[in-house]
Amino acid sequence: MEKRTEIGEIGGEFGLINRIASKVQIYHPETLTGIGDDAAVLAENQELTVVTTDLLLEGIHFDLSYTPIRHLGYKAVAINISDIAAMNAIPKQITVSVALSNRFSVEAIDDLYEGIRAACENYQVDLVGGDTSASRSGLVISITAIGSVSKDKIVRRNTAQKGDIICSTGDLGGAFIGLQHLEREKSVFLANPDMQPQLEGKDYVVSRQLRPEARMDVIHDLRAAGVVPTSMIDISDGLAPELIHICKDSGVGAVIFEDKMPIHDQTFLAATELNFSPMTAALNGGEDYELLFTVKQEDYDKVKNISDLNFIGYIDAEVGKVRMKMKSETVVDITAPGL
Amino acid sequence: MEKRTEIGEIGGEFGLINRIASKVQIYHPETLTGIGDDAAVLAENQELTVVTTDLLLEGIHFDLSYTPIRHLGYKAVAINISDIAAMNAIPKQITVSVALSNRFSVEAIDDLYEGIRAACENYQVDLVGGDTSASRSGLVISITAIGSVSKDKIVRRNTAQKGDIICSTGDLGGAFIGLQHLEREKSVFLANPDMQPQLEGKDYVVSRQLRPEARMDVIHDLRAAGVVPTSMIDISDGLAPELIHICKDSGVGAVIFEDKMPIHDQTFLAATELNFSPMTAALNGGEDYELLFTVKQEDYDKVKNISDLNFIGYIDAEVGKVRMKMKSETVVDITAPGL
Repeated sequence: MEKRTEIGEIGGEFGLINRIASKVQIYHPETLTGIGDDAAVLAENQELTVVTTDLLLEGIHFDLSYTPIRHLGYKAVAINISDIAAMNAIPKQITVSVALSNRFSVEAIDDLYEGIRAACENYQVDLVGGDTSASRSGLVISITAIGSVSKDKIVRRNTAQKGDIICSTGDLGGAFIGLQHLEREKSVFLANPDMQPQLEGKDYVVSRQLRPEARMDVIHDLRAAGVVPTSMIDISDGLAPELIHICKDSGVGAVIFEDKMPIHDQTFLAATELNFSPMTAALNGGEDYELLFTVKQEDYDKVKNISDLNFIGYIDAEVGKVRMKMKSETVVDITAPGL
Repeated sequence: MEKRTEIGEIGGEFGLINRIASKVQIYHPETLTGIGDDAAVLAENQELTVVTTDLLLEGIHFDLSYTPIRHLGYKAVAINISDIAAMNAIPKQITVSVALSNRFSVEAIDDLYEGIRAACENYQVDLVGGDTSASRSGLVISITAIGSVSKDKIVRRNTAQKGDIICSTGDLGGAFIGLQHLEREKSVFLANPDMQPQLEGKDYVVSRQLRPEARMDVIHDLRAAGVVPTSMIDISDGLAPELIHICKDSGVGAVIFEDKMPIHDQTFLAATELNFSPMTAALNGGEDYELLFTVKQEDYDKVKNISDLNFIGYIDAEVGKVRMKMKSETVVDITAPGL
């Protein structure tokens, strides 16, 4: 049996803060003060500061019956880093607030912060503050990420131009299909606890759901290539709503091509098994945390060799309209519920 | 009957964000981008950036049965501003994330943000981002505040020196005693719903609990006086634990005087009515959000006329020890549970 330590045994909230603080690593010299004072202190620099925040609640945003808590910690950081990446910025610091009930052992909290620390190391960000408290109703995680970017490199979502090439990173729809399989296996298990989860051949889509990565690699590749996108957004709600955001905010339209849509083989098979359209998963599934951006046509030669990049369409002048050209040459309007 | 609009009627989460964003006011020219992109963008400046965050949960940190939701919005901002003030910094931006169940009407959410906006106006801070989501279990509020301060003015909690004068703002213990009266009236009401709340003569202590202010006024007074405290902390958990924090972190001790303790007349009476020690409320009650700081003796003449400031003791060399000199001339050790 695994060891279980009650939080009271390590000195309550103060003990918990010390425990968390003692394991925090600082990567940036400009992080002058982290945990241990009223507020974190970040040194000045010559760049713009960007800040983003996310609030995650058990039962709404995640289900611990099939989510390893360490992965949850990693993902909670990654989705904030993804927002920083979408500004073409470099993440520097995060604050992490956590509320939890006494259902959680110290080992579980250690696992959560192990995932948070793994993400901090991977993305080279400093955990500089936060808050821990009791909760009557499951785990709550709130993360704020701060990054920086020089004025000439910042990329917003309202600056796409007619003629620009539309690029997306990685592949789409996997995280949503992974979630559907996890939910299906949970239902089967609840109906019959003797059943073992049937997730063979679903490893890729399940990992897309449980442990997404922010695409900082592509941000660094774009910098190395000397290219600043003309607009950018991260794909948290599916390609369709994100592209509609860019088009509406920029006062342009877009055409994308069915045969350019990046859908992984396993996403295709696992979606088909559920009688779900792989294309719908890619367009409206969400949680892929890939980047969607536009570049000027003359920058194509500079970005064409960046790995894991797809050129899926172009920006046109029809304001707010996103259309997909099918393999059959017919053209369909792309919409997103709620937009 | 008051009008009740369901959140679905205003277009769900996107409608809610637009509703919030449309009422946000920007006070600082360096706030380049607020709500409406992946992350808020803050222009560079020549100062240090400070950041602090708090996570508040219904049933743990607040009770809506006696807390007007507008006051709650105000308080949630004020307690973060108080942390920025405690660094001797000027607050500039906040992010606000809120999770709520469908128990809350749009009018209730409007009230919450009305309080948040009132605090933003009072403290001159820009609401630059956040997150809204569903909740299965009551209201959750997470706020991150960002401020700035030049390197020569920042004040930490580990820099008090032997001989410094200990100052505290306002009066102490009121918020805790107010809470006890609110809880008592709630119990009476639950036992007998025909009873009316008996809070006459408790207006001051109740307002200390429900609508505390961050002491930015004193920060501005100190700047006008040309004084930088040698250490500072905000009093969120009571004078005793905060002074012990300063002493332990600074490697010093402290002596405070019983007859200098700032306790409001109503706090004294309302505590006595509950057979509660007013001094214990002041030392260990918490939630007053006053400032505790130390100044060099030679700065006394510069700060002595700042209004609402109390000189309650001095720093001595006995590391980590905080003692109180009683009117009777006896000396007692001051401790704080959990420290």
